[in-house]
Amino acid sequence: MNRTLINSLEEGKETKISGWAKKVRDTKYMIFVILEDRSGSIQVSVDKANQEDLVKKLDGVLPDSVLEFEGRMVLSEYVKQGGKEFLPTDVNILSKAEALPLEENANLDTRLDYRWLDLRTRKNSLITKIQSELVKGMREYLYSQDFTEIHTPKLIGAASESGSEVFEVNYFDRKAYLAQSPQFYKQMAISSGLERVFEVAPVFRAENSNTYRHATEYTGFDVEFAYPENIEEVMSLEEDLLIAGLTKVKEKYENEINDLFDTEVIIPTKPFPRIDLQDLYKELHERYGYEIPKEDVGDMNNETESLITKYAIEKFGSEFIFVTGFSSKKRPFYHMRDNDGNPIGYDLIWRGTEITSGSLREHRYDVLAKQAKEKGLGKDVEFYMDFFKYGCPPHGGFGIGLDRLTMLLLCLPSLKETMFIFRGPNRINP
Amino acid sequence: MNRTLINSLEEGKETKISGWAKKVRDTKYMIFVILEDRSGSIQVSVDKANQEDLVKKLDGVLPDSVLEFEGRMVLSEYVKQGGKEFLPTDVNILSKAEALPLEENANLDTRLDYRWLDLRTRKNSLITKIQSELVKGMREYLYSQDFTEIHTPKLIGAASESGSEVFEVNYFDRKAYLAQSPQFYKQMAISSGLERVFEVAPVFRAENSNTYRHATEYTGFDVEFAYPENIEEVMSLEEDLLIAGLTKVKEKYENEINDLFDTEVIIPTKPFPRIDLQDLYKELHERYGYEIPKEDVGDMNNETESLITKYAIEKFGSEFIFVTGFSSKKRPFYHMRDNDGNPIGYDLIWRGTEITSGSLREHRYDVLAKQAKEKGLGKDVEFYMDFFKYGCPPHGGFGIGLDRLTMLLLCLPSLKETMFIFRGPNRINP
Repeated sequence: MNRTLINSLEEGKETKISGWAKKVRDTKYMIFVILEDRSGSIQVSVDKANQEDLVKKLDGVLPDSVLEFEGRMVLSEYVKQGGKEFLPTDVNILSKAEALPLEENANLDTRLDYRWLDLRTRKNSLITKIQSELVKGMREYLYSQDFTEIHTPKLIGAASESGSEVFEVNYFDRKAYLAQSPQFYKQMAISSGLERVFEVAPVFRAENSNTYRHATEYTGFDVEFAYPENIEEVMSLEEDLLIAGLTKVKEKYENEINDLFDTEVIIPTKPFPRIDLQDLYKELHERYGYEIPKEDVGDMNNETESLITKYAIEKFGSEFIFVTGFSSKKRPFYHMRDNDGNPIGYDLIWRGTEITSGSLREHRYDVLAKQAKEKGLGKDVEFYMDFFKYGCPPHGGFGIGLDRLTMLLLCLPSLKETMFIFRGPNRINP
Repeated sequence: MNRTLINSLEEGKETKISGWAKKVRDTKYMIFVILEDRSGSIQVSVDKANQEDLVKKLDGVLPDSVLEFEGRMVLSEYVKQGGKEFLPTDVNILSKAEALPLEENANLDTRLDYRWLDLRTRKNSLITKIQSELVKGMREYLYSQDFTEIHTPKLIGAASESGSEVFEVNYFDRKAYLAQSPQFYKQMAISSGLERVFEVAPVFRAENSNTYRHATEYTGFDVEFAYPENIEEVMSLEEDLLIAGLTKVKEKYENEINDLFDTEVIIPTKPFPRIDLQDLYKELHERYGYEIPKEDVGDMNNETESLITKYAIEKFGSEFIFVTGFSSKKRPFYHMRDNDGNPIGYDLIWRGTEITSGSLREHRYDVLAKQAKEKGLGKDVEFYMDFFKYGCPPHGGFGIGLDRLTMLLLCLPSLKETMFIFRGPNRINP
């Protein structure tokens, strides 16, 4: 007999259901089990007087054991659980649970120690499903725009790109490093003649940062394409990409998100507002009396990220806002610069947090070499510089922190609660 | 003026095209450039007598430079290149190439040193695009079957799972390791209540193997689901998955694959043939006089993998064949075993090479603990054992080496030519 999903049960039809015993209640005449599978849950009612064999089998079965019942669903006006109950003729104990070590109000660290138990709540398991749907929608959009998905190496020969710390790997008789982004390799794809590429893959950051939005390993969603007319085309593509992903999520999970996360999925409209950094400083000063500290001029800091969202909502009614006009001192050497030496790039801010950096890339070997030198980068970027020696189309792109995006979408307090399994400086288990 | 793709040019319409100058031929009266973009190529014809400015700009431009032409396409019976040529009014040198260091008959090692140049041939760039399409088709099938895509950590706290060597990472003040498969974590997903999951992500193997089918990093396509009725259900899902992926590839790239790879995309039909290992030994002996060496009994070796394909084609007319009945000595501890102690699992062989191992997994804590102990596994798998203590549904799954699959699909001689960038014991660059 094949298994039937709980939400597909037909009244009176003999079948089999399997799932978690979320509750087991032993009363005078009846044993009630709330059985849950991925589709829903139902009350299973065992008549103690007439079903001694089932009573015996269920003896000592604790919640979160996995059970399989044969029997049939009947409609019953006495049952709260959707007016349906399951009358079993047999039970099979598929997996017997020990008493759960995780209390409902456990602190976050204990929850992460037992992450697989923590994820069993309907809310937490939805986070992973929603992220899957978000990525599905984003990928579908890129496929429709003739993008190719690539898989670039995470083991690399040189520690590179920027100041961020990289993890060192013992690679046979030498050292290798874990890629802190696919940046160099998605640009190599452009130089390889793949005009439009994306990658969804782990990135690694050896930063000893313990904040709500940092992790040592997370999933990057990276996009790069050749021949953008200008930076507007890059921003426009990112707008469409996010709209496509969020729309998919809303279509499938709108109600659950409203109910369980107490927030709404708002689909932004194009174009998202844009503001130059200098104008932003002025606005934040005039509106909120905020003065950017000298060392942060030319860049944003946590305060500006959170104030700019306030500003974007007040001024534009938008949760998303692009910021442009960063200083070349604060941006990587591979960003293309305009005639005044200013990087042609942006950050995208959503709900108080940066979710993307994007830019046109410098594809001219001589200019790129000059910019690398200016940042003090030498031998480590030589292999990358070679990608531009033998012809390379102009191009641009961006990278999105996928877990940050999911965290903000669901208004979760931290990446630790967002990621399937979180990795931080002090957490490498389970 | 916006760029037009070469295969979308309309006769006589003023526009702009951009791409690689694949050939530059300077004749007495004309300069001919074959310009190529992702959609196709066209001859651009410059009239030297009347277009001195263009002649000047094109002076010294070498092949693989990236050019942008303004002008219009006209039909011309004199032009071989599809009867079309482009008459430019202006040119813009987007990126000037140095003389290419890669000769057409370069050896594989040199080609890999300059992988981004090697990928510029139509054939090589297609490999990446075909893999992208294959994965797209496979993912779409899994979405349709209610699967969730997960992203499991690649940085792990314990070296584990099997005898394969793992890479060691310097992780702040301690050691971490690179996951050699998502096996433990996709099983954790099952224990978390996500009934059906898959992951497409890098896996890392610190094996010093220098063969056509080994790499130290490659892309794994991993599937795991709860409540399979039996191993047949796992095999059947894999059949459907491969058929879905191959069908997508055939729909989009059938002609190119015939032309450039001199092979056909054959969509297999369900069910693929299945054979028990003992019967296989007998058949190979009777048919080909092959005797399995004693140390390989209970398993396959390279010779059996290649002979079994011969056998499958002769006997069943199938390029795919499932092999079952492996010895528990040759399989990992987490495979479920039948009442006789034999693992309930399979390998899938295609065109002489193993592409998958699949099995039902042991979800009963006590049995699993016994099997782990038998293999001498202790502390390193403790964290994994915990996933089964508090209830876990029965489940099964399999992992596919995506790059192997692509290699076999296109009849390529080695992973080195298949992967976007290959990584091996002696190769960590570019």
